[in-house]
Amino acid sequence: MLSAITKRFIPSLPVLSRSMSVAGSPFKLALVQLAVTADKEKNLKHARAKVLEASKNGANIVVLPECFNSPYGTNFFPDYAETIPEGTSTKALASMAKDANVYLFGGSIPEKEEATGKIFNTLTVYDPSGSLIATHRKVHLFDIDIPGGIRFQESDILSAGSWLTHVDTSYGKIGAGICYDIRFPEMAMIAARKGCIAMIYPGAFNTTTGPMHWELLQRARAVDNQMYVAACSPARDESAAYHAWGHSTIVGPNGDVKATCEESEAIIYAEIDPQDIINRRKHIPIYSQRRFDVYEDVAESVEEGNNGHVSLKQDKVNEL
Amino acid sequence: MLSAITKRFIPSLPVLSRSMSVAGSPFKLALVQLAVTADKEKNLKHARAKVLEASKNGANIVVLPECFNSPYGTNFFPDYAETIPEGTSTKALASMAKDANVYLFGGSIPEKEEATGKIFNTLTVYDPSGSLIATHRKVHLFDIDIPGGIRFQESDILSAGSWLTHVDTSYGKIGAGICYDIRFPEMAMIAARKGCIAMIYPGAFNTTTGPMHWELLQRARAVDNQMYVAACSPARDESAAYHAWGHSTIVGPNGDVKATCEESEAIIYAEIDPQDIINRRKHIPIYSQRRFDVYEDVAESVEEGNNGHVSLKQDKVNEL
Repeated sequence: MLSAITKRFIPSLPVLSRSMSVAGSPFKLALVQLAVTADKEKNLKHARAKVLEASKNGANIVVLPECFNSPYGTNFFPDYAETIPEGTSTKALASMAKDANVYLFGGSIPEKEEATGKIFNTLTVYDPSGSLIATHRKVHLFDIDIPGGIRFQESDILSAGSWLTHVDTSYGKIGAGICYDIRFPEMAMIAARKGCIAMIYPGAFNTTTGPMHWELLQRARAVDNQMYVAACSPARDESAAYHAWGHSTIVGPNGDVKATCEESEAIIYAEIDPQDIINRRKHIPIYSQRRFDVYEDVAESVEEGNNGHVSLKQDKVNEL
Repeated sequence: MLSAITKRFIPSLPVLSRSMSVAGSPFKLALVQLAVTADKEKNLKHARAKVLEASKNGANIVVLPECFNSPYGTNFFPDYAETIPEGTSTKALASMAKDANVYLFGGSIPEKEEATGKIFNTLTVYDPSGSLIATHRKVHLFDIDIPGGIRFQESDILSAGSWLTHVDTSYGKIGAGICYDIRFPEMAMIAARKGCIAMIYPGAFNTTTGPMHWELLQRARAVDNQMYVAACSPARDESAAYHAWGHSTIVGPNGDVKATCEESEAIIYAEIDPQDIINRRKHIPIYSQRRFDVYEDVAESVEEGNNGHVSLKQDKVNEL
């Protein structure tokens, strides 16, 4: 739909922008900044207690951090990896979601693909009946090397996912990414333009990249797409090799921090209201002002599958 | 070029990412946060003095603010509008650039297109010989309505430009936008991926949108594209109808503020070093990690013309 103004000021061009609908209803979001240990069974029990606590406090959607059942490190991933949905962690998450009666974004776990032996960094999402409704394998692997800061090469051990993920919930559609995925703006741009009201990123930035970019990237995704953005970190464990930044944060559609915390274990909450997205897009109407007659809309290059997986349209794949 | 790592972790896909070259040499950038009045002649004289001052202080590229020859307001634009390159302001800018021996990003002026009578918000850029080397007409017009904040409808009076702009300088290629253009991430994404080392935005955010988004948007463009970003505002005039935010700012390729100021008249300076871009892209190599097998590269939808104008490829235009 072209607005009257858009039609008037460049009447000769047929497609200037695309409108989008925002479908959703208010809900309470909780991020569990979990203290993670090297003991998988203990981590699963502890996660369960925290998910139940969040539910008691009124949360409708609960998020666990990246790598919540294992220490974060390529040396740990093979030992902690499980198949999905047969593995212990997947079963534990399904039962947490059901018992807490919440949608559960189950952080991420190292996933082993039986057929290939490949290991992925994978988010699983459950509905309040405990059904597994979506999986996201980290698409952009964390391979960085900052002199005097941090060097980490996920791709030494992990394989990368090959789809973006949009999760249908009764509160609205939600996009999912994992940690380093947040550095790639296309993911949130596509999610928002396809109707997602929020992006949820389990993530474990560190004490080098955290203070530089953690909040900036969340606020950037939020303001550019006028959507909610949440990033859920593990708590910092000073005795572990990898020092997570913590600071789990929920950002509103105006780029404003709604809830945050420091590095210790915590649960943070925020009310998510799709009406606020509608209002922001009315006040600063970038959704009808984009100039897709000057540059293409990246969201038009992909299509959503029935399983929530979003990937390049077939005719685009053929062009590769 | 695919990296060895990229090739290894998803060997079956032919195109995962594209590398890019960074060509440029260090230079000193100056932003002139000019005090603008309703007297055009006075504004031009004052701009000239400030451009010469910046040059004396070692600047190689100097930037003036949006609407530097006129108060900012749709009621002023028709009266202050000039044709380019015949108008007084264009001539004055060419002579400033030559006399100061700098590249001059001449802020913006209301431009009248003789043939159509249309008015644009237009940036003109000059080389140190005083030759006009690029023009950018604001592509995304500022039409916002924030209750209790600000309502402004540029499109009541202005027409929108229909190209993005990349300016070839002897220091490297530089992308240009005007103010509200910064809210649209595609412009900077395309510029960076086509080899620009910086985005320069003359802009006049206001006291509602300034504190919310001015710095955030600049830092977002910088960190997502690992390039320099500069935004140059007029100084605030409390007696004018429109209160500019000021706070002209230069951000480095790590998303870090290199230079900034408050709302009063000022010139700010920063050393721009393309090597820092190369280093950042080596440390956090998002340039080789983008997943153009999962989503398309918006930069591939456009092409650069000889005049620095960047627009949708002809086959894409035909699809509109």
